[in-house]
Amino acid sequence: MEKTEVTKGQLIYDGKAKKVYATSNPNYFIQEFKDDASVPDDIKTGAVRSKGICNNRISAICFNMLERRGVPTFFVELLGEREMVVRKLEIFPIDIVVRNVAAGSLCSRLDLTEGMALPFPVVEFHLKDDKLRDPLINHDHIKIITSVTEGEVKVLESRAKEINCHLKNFFYERNLILVEFKLEFGKDISKRVRLGDEISPDTCLLWDRDSYEKLDKDRFRRDLRGAEEAYQEVLKRVSAA
Amino acid sequence: MEKTEVTKGQLIYDGKAKKVYATSNPNYFIQEFKDDASVPDDIKTGAVRSKGICNNRISAICFNMLERRGVPTFFVELLGEREMVVRKLEIFPIDIVVRNVAAGSLCSRLDLTEGMALPFPVVEFHLKDDKLRDPLINHDHIKIITSVTEGEVKVLESRAKEINCHLKNFFYERNLILVEFKLEFGKDISKRVRLGDEISPDTCLLWDRDSYEKLDKDRFRRDLRGAEEAYQEVLKRVSAA
Repeated sequence: MEKTEVTKGQLIYDGKAKKVYATSNPNYFIQEFKDDASVPDDIKTGAVRSKGICNNRISAICFNMLERRGVPTFFVELLGEREMVVRKLEIFPIDIVVRNVAAGSLCSRLDLTEGMALPFPVVEFHLKDDKLRDPLINHDHIKIITSVTEGEVKVLESRAKEINCHLKNFFYERNLILVEFKLEFGKDISKRVRLGDEISPDTCLLWDRDSYEKLDKDRFRRDLRGAEEAYQEVLKRVSAA
Repeated sequence: MEKTEVTKGQLIYDGKAKKVYATSNPNYFIQEFKDDASVPDDIKTGAVRSKGICNNRISAICFNMLERRGVPTFFVELLGEREMVVRKLEIFPIDIVVRNVAAGSLCSRLDLTEGMALPFPVVEFHLKDDKLRDPLINHDHIKIITSVTEGEVKVLESRAKEINCHLKNFFYERNLILVEFKLEFGKDISKRVRLGDEISPDTCLLWDRDSYEKLDKDRFRRDLRGAEEAYQEVLKRVSAA
């Protein structure tokens, strides 16, 4: 990994779960993970103790694993307990959701039984728009409302499937089922497409392989104490060699 | 057109706007158009006088026009004021929506301004399921939850675009803008894909070309009397040579 010397600059984004800072190097940002948690539509908000620390480390481990397998990410290095240095990306305005098992909104939208294994990974594009609740969009919508090209859509879709392959295996070996997850991509200063955002129990649904116990953000809907344990447990499992 | 001798048999489907009967010929059905009207989620139901008569005739005119242009439909012939003879189809469980102008659910879903001309026709697939409110689905969802093949999806998409081309011109020449419409397709007994259902102000959003006045089902949301006039007006325009 390239060695970086950066000092924290101006806060440029303060989101629900992360803050992003400029740095002394115009090509790099610092991403800081917060403990703040929320569920869609702000039905419930709160803080899960040490969530930020867990998500920072889990994401770093996953990004490193993907880089070793040839998938370009924006991760550069860990900086502190809650911070990582990342490359500056021009983020595509679409979220990509990959689903291996029927759960969550897929079940309610299409009346599927939660836990049903899908015969192949389902890839969905969603418009990144909190107010509109990140609606599902198709290829025609993408062309109408964004400047993402058809070629880029194909790259994102195939990259998402490749990442799913690596991540699913990685988690499975650690007794976790990767039920579904959300990805964000962007272009670096050389216009290369890289994975951004985070890979954590906030963006992945992860179930225990044996008990199907939920070890992700869904726990937060039930109780804070359980959520804290879930994030710790996932960190423990992905830290294992 | 082939000549048919059919007598009405058993009622086999009683929907919101149409009834379908078996006939003495196992390859044919009789489709009857009702005056009953409703808006999604049954917020409002009622009857629009003579709507069934208008929709039967408008659909017949459109199906005939499409057949002359080489598009296979299930239409055989008009039978009575509210009835047409149609081929029996095995209907695909998906609705296809084609949009030329931003309106209705597209605007609320993606925060677009009503009336914005789309740079190209947007094609959407929706699961035919009243209870789930006909959710938008993508190609992966179709493969997961239906038995429609990828090849069939491609046929439906290209057929829908072709029909849009013919219908848009046809209505435009009659001072109507085809804003968006819904299509249903099915396979006949020879497994040939044909257009089914209806083409009417119940399934198309039609605006006057000059005033942008709505001449479709949207009128029903406002008042019954206005709706009656709108259906009559569309029939008058499409009946013109």
